[in-house]
Amino acid sequence: MPSTHTTRPVVPIAVLVSGRGSNLEAILEAIDKKYITNGAAKVVISNRPDAPALDIARKHNVPAKILDDHGLPKKSWEYDQRTIRLLQEHGVKSQDGLILLSGYFRILTPEFVGLYERRILNIHPALLPAFPGLNAQKQALDHGAKVTGCTVHFVDKGVDTGPIILQTPVPVRDDDTVETLSQRILREEHRLYPEAVRLFTDGMLTVKERRVLLVE
Amino acid sequence: MPSTHTTRPVVPIAVLVSGRGSNLEAILEAIDKKYITNGAAKVVISNRPDAPALDIARKHNVPAKILDDHGLPKKSWEYDQRTIRLLQEHGVKSQDGLILLSGYFRILTPEFVGLYERRILNIHPALLPAFPGLNAQKQALDHGAKVTGCTVHFVDKGVDTGPIILQTPVPVRDDDTVETLSQRILREEHRLYPEAVRLFTDGMLTVKERRVLLVE
Repeated sequence: MPSTHTTRPVVPIAVLVSGRGSNLEAILEAIDKKYITNGAAKVVISNRPDAPALDIARKHNVPAKILDDHGLPKKSWEYDQRTIRLLQEHGVKSQDGLILLSGYFRILTPEFVGLYERRILNIHPALLPAFPGLNAQKQALDHGAKVTGCTVHFVDKGVDTGPIILQTPVPVRDDDTVETLSQRILREEHRLYPEAVRLFTDGMLTVKERRVLLVE
Repeated sequence: MPSTHTTRPVVPIAVLVSGRGSNLEAILEAIDKKYITNGAAKVVISNRPDAPALDIARKHNVPAKILDDHGLPKKSWEYDQRTIRLLQEHGVKSQDGLILLSGYFRILTPEFVGLYERRILNIHPALLPAFPGLNAQKQALDHGAKVTGCTVHFVDKGVDTGPIILQTPVPVRDDDTVETLSQRILREEHRLYPEAVRLFTDGMLTVKERRVLLVE
């Protein structure tokens, strides 16, 4: 029986990191294991020279680049332009590339987001629109939520406001601390983010107003 | 073997309704089936003379009262005082009673809420704090949420802001309409609200700042 799988061009992927990069690792492993077949990691860029995520990139033979943002504001078009140059040097272009934020502690300028429109994904440790911004797990605990979770979404010009691709709920327990809850959510993140990347690189996503739907 | 179940006074329950009362029915059935053993329904009060919920009350032999609010504002201390009088006549007092809102299209005054502090519950068809207020299911769909759900919470002086007792997640499907999503959430509501009433009437809930915890 002939395969019904159409041949698609491989999507060049960049991952922007600031920290440990556990989601980066989940995605690189998903590529290694051929869970993601239509995406190739081209570069990992960190704004912090000491981000452990850089070692994860090197371990997987992905170019690991540092663009130190020391002394720059959290949102800077000057800095973003340096990032864009590096992305393009590694073949992650605005026409066909994919940018994944993975614990990236910078805010992208509207210019950067506009250039790579609908080609930048982020993962957030809450069920957006609940608990956006920093310390989402602590926000959920302090609010007394019984269910929180994680969200993979397109990045738009707001903070954690872009169209939602996938969400998974995670229960909050009475004896949870920020640490135990964060760990439980993180396990789901490591499953959810590769799944979203697979859907994107397989060309399965379409956006209708705010709703992200699977292509029929 | 002796029962370890301590004898507790039965909690007198009132249910305030405006519409069909499907959650009312779930709760009355939970009492009939002895899923809820420490609560007794004393009165159902509707602000609308034609609420189908009144028939459900009568079918279960619970006094069904009409307090028509025609021409009154949605929030009225004068009206609430009439409600309180009726509650007290039926033995649902602020010291030991429990008030359940079930599709009640009125806003309680701070005076009413203050009198029955931590003794009024509501169910909301979303995972609060996401999508508070009216048309929560449509809000979730329009926002493109992939997970929504329902929430049982204590009523405080805000709208849908009180401490959360229980939540259940419900997936949103690509082909959902407001109707199909509402139905899927409603099935969970019918399970969740009786469970919250059981925990309350069994004296299992304690509130610590915003967090509602099970008594150890």
